[in-house]
Amino acid sequence: MKIAVDAMGGDYAPEALVEGVLLAIPQCPADLLLVGNEARLREILSRDKRASSVEVVHAPETIGMGEAGPMAIRRKREASLSVAMRFLAEGKVDAVVSAGNSSAIVATARHFVGLVPGLRRPAMAVHLPTLTGGVLLVDVGAHAESSSIHLAQSAALAHAYLKVTNRLDHPRIGLLNIGHEPIKGTRIVQRAAALMKRTSLCFIGNVEPQGLFFDRTDIAVCDGFVGNVVLKLYEGLSDNLLRFLEARLDAKRESPEGGLRRIVDQVREIYDYQSVGGAPLLGVQKPVIVAHGHSLGPAIANATLFASRIAEDRVFEHLGEDLERDSILTELKHHNAMLVLESFKNKWGRKRTDS
Amino acid sequence: MKIAVDAMGGDYAPEALVEGVLLAIPQCPADLLLVGNEARLREILSRDKRASSVEVVHAPETIGMGEAGPMAIRRKREASLSVAMRFLAEGKVDAVVSAGNSSAIVATARHFVGLVPGLRRPAMAVHLPTLTGGVLLVDVGAHAESSSIHLAQSAALAHAYLKVTNRLDHPRIGLLNIGHEPIKGTRIVQRAAALMKRTSLCFIGNVEPQGLFFDRTDIAVCDGFVGNVVLKLYEGLSDNLLRFLEARLDAKRESPEGGLRRIVDQVREIYDYQSVGGAPLLGVQKPVIVAHGHSLGPAIANATLFASRIAEDRVFEHLGEDLERDSILTELKHHNAMLVLESFKNKWGRKRTDS
Repeated sequence: MKIAVDAMGGDYAPEALVEGVLLAIPQCPADLLLVGNEARLREILSRDKRASSVEVVHAPETIGMGEAGPMAIRRKREASLSVAMRFLAEGKVDAVVSAGNSSAIVATARHFVGLVPGLRRPAMAVHLPTLTGGVLLVDVGAHAESSSIHLAQSAALAHAYLKVTNRLDHPRIGLLNIGHEPIKGTRIVQRAAALMKRTSLCFIGNVEPQGLFFDRTDIAVCDGFVGNVVLKLYEGLSDNLLRFLEARLDAKRESPEGGLRRIVDQVREIYDYQSVGGAPLLGVQKPVIVAHGHSLGPAIANATLFASRIAEDRVFEHLGEDLERDSILTELKHHNAMLVLESFKNKWGRKRTDS
Repeated sequence: MKIAVDAMGGDYAPEALVEGVLLAIPQCPADLLLVGNEARLREILSRDKRASSVEVVHAPETIGMGEAGPMAIRRKREASLSVAMRFLAEGKVDAVVSAGNSSAIVATARHFVGLVPGLRRPAMAVHLPTLTGGVLLVDVGAHAESSSIHLAQSAALAHAYLKVTNRLDHPRIGLLNIGHEPIKGTRIVQRAAALMKRTSLCFIGNVEPQGLFFDRTDIAVCDGFVGNVVLKLYEGLSDNLLRFLEARLDAKRESPEGGLRRIVDQVREIYDYQSVGGAPLLGVQKPVIVAHGHSLGPAIANATLFASRIAEDRVFEHLGEDLERDSILTELKHHNAMLVLESFKNKWGRKRTDS
C-alpha cells in the first residue's frame, strides 16, 4: 500500500508536508511518497535520517491557493496535485493527501480519478466533535454553491460513508437550517428537504446549528460555503475560548499539572478537529483526503494515517458499492424529476384547469 | 417615551414576554406596552404587583413561527405584531420589540413603518463578543437569500450604525467568506466584494470565520442564512464547551465560590450574546428590535432596555440621516449598475470586436 502526499499544497508547503510525512512514518503501515519539486524536497529531506524510507516524485508545477480548479488542470498538467491524482488513477498509489487549493483538489480528483456513477459532484465530509459524540458535516467546502439535488446527493454520500465506517445502518440525516419549520431557509434548502423526505433515507428534517450539540442527528447536510463557515467558526471560537481560560490560569500561576488546566487540555483534545487531520472527498472512485490549508506537520501526519486507514479498509470502494446496491442515486434522480414536474404542474397546469 | 412589546411572538410567548417586561420596569425609563391577547395577558399580569404600570393593548390574532411574513400581513391585519408596528408608524410608541417570526417582523416593519429611502431591504445586526472586543455581524436572519447589492447595502447600514452608536468614523468592513483569496466563495459574494471595493466604504476584503476572533474587522457582512448559522453555532458551541467545564468542576466538587468556577463564569458572561437580548433591524425608519425566538424573561428584559436606549438616542433616525448625507446608497446603486454594464460588455462586447 502506498500513499501519495501533494508536497506543494497548503499554506506551509512544502516544509509542513515533509514534516508530516516524516512524523507519520513510525505508525504508518503504508509506504509514503511525496510529489513536488524534487530538488527542494530532497534538500529538506536531507536534514533527516528517517528520510531514506520516503519516495520522491518530481512535479515541476504548483497550483496556487487562488487559482480556479478547472483552469489549473488545463494549464498545469505537471502540477504536483495532477501528478498525484494521475498516480492514484493508474493504481500506482492507493490514496492521495493534499492540503492545497480545494477547488483544484476537486477538479483534479474528478478529472483523473472520476466519480461514482450517477453522482454529479463529490462532497467533503468532516466529523465535528461534540460532548455527545459528534456529527458528520457534509459538504465542508468542495463547492461553495449547491442545488437541491447536490445537497441530497451529499446526504446519500454521507449515509453510505457512515454505513461503511461506523456500521450504522440507518444514520439520521438532518438538513442544516436556520429554523426547524419547513418554511425556513433558502428555496434551495426547502426543496432539498422536500426531495429527501421522499427517499428511503432516514431524513429527520431541519436541524439548527445549536442542535448539532444535542445528538439530534448523525449527519448534517449543508452547502460547502455554510459547511466551511461552520468548520472555521468552530475552530476559531473553541480556540478563542480555551486561550482565554489558559491565560487566566497563567495569571493565577496555576501549575501545568493543576486540576483545571488538565480539564482545559481535555476539552482542547475533544474539540481539536485537526487531530483527524483530513476530510475524505466522498464520491471519488478512490481515496482522496483533503487536509486543512493551515495544517502543520502533526495535522498532515494525522491526515496521512487517516488516508492509510481509509485505503486499507477500502472505504471508498465499499462506499461506491453501497450506493450502487441501494440505488439511492437513481432514486434521488427520479424523485428530483418528479418534483420538477410537479412544480411545473403547480405553476401552469392548475391555471389551465381554472380557466 | 413608550416601547411596545409584541407579547405573542416567540417560543415562550406570552409568559416569557410578560416576565421580561416586568423585569425591565425598574431600570427602564420608557413606558411599556404589551400587545396581544388582552384576557390572557391580564391574567398573567394579575399575578404580579408590578403589573399596574404596564399598559395592555388587545390584538386578537397571532402570527405563527412557520408562517411566511408577506402572507401573514394580508391575512392577519389584527395580529399583535401588525398592531405594534402600526402604533410605531403612527407615533403612538417609539420602538417595537418582538421575539416572533423574523420573516413576519421584517414584512410588517417594511409595510407599516417603511424603509430608509433608496434601501431595498432591512438587515438584522448583532454584536458578536470576542476577547478582542467583538464584531458587528450583519445580516443575521432578516433574509435567507441575498444578492450582491443586498450584501453591500447591509454593509452600508452597519457602517452608519457603528458611526452613530460607537462614533467610529471609518469602521472596517469585511466580507465573511471561506477564504481570503478573491476567487473564494459564491459568485454573489465575489460580486459583492467587487462592488464594495469601488465605494467609499472602508472595505478590507474577505474575512474568514476564524478572523472574527482576531480583531481583523469591525463589521462582518454575510447573507441572513450564513449569519444566522454563525449566531446559533456561536451560542451552541460556547454553551457546550462551558457546560463541559462546569460538569467537570461539579465532579471535582469545586465550590461555587472556587477560583476556577469564577473564571468559567466570567467566560460565560463574555460569550453570552443573549445578554444584549436583541438585534436592531437596521434600515427601518423607526426602531424595531428583534429578540431571539428562544428568549426567556431576562433576554426579553435586556431587549426592552436596549430598545429604550436606541429610541432615546434616536439611533434609527440618525442612521437614516447619515445614509442620506453620505449618499452611500446612491453610490452603491451607481457602482452596481456600472458592474452589471461591464459584465455585459465582457460577455458580448468583446466577442463583437473579435469577430
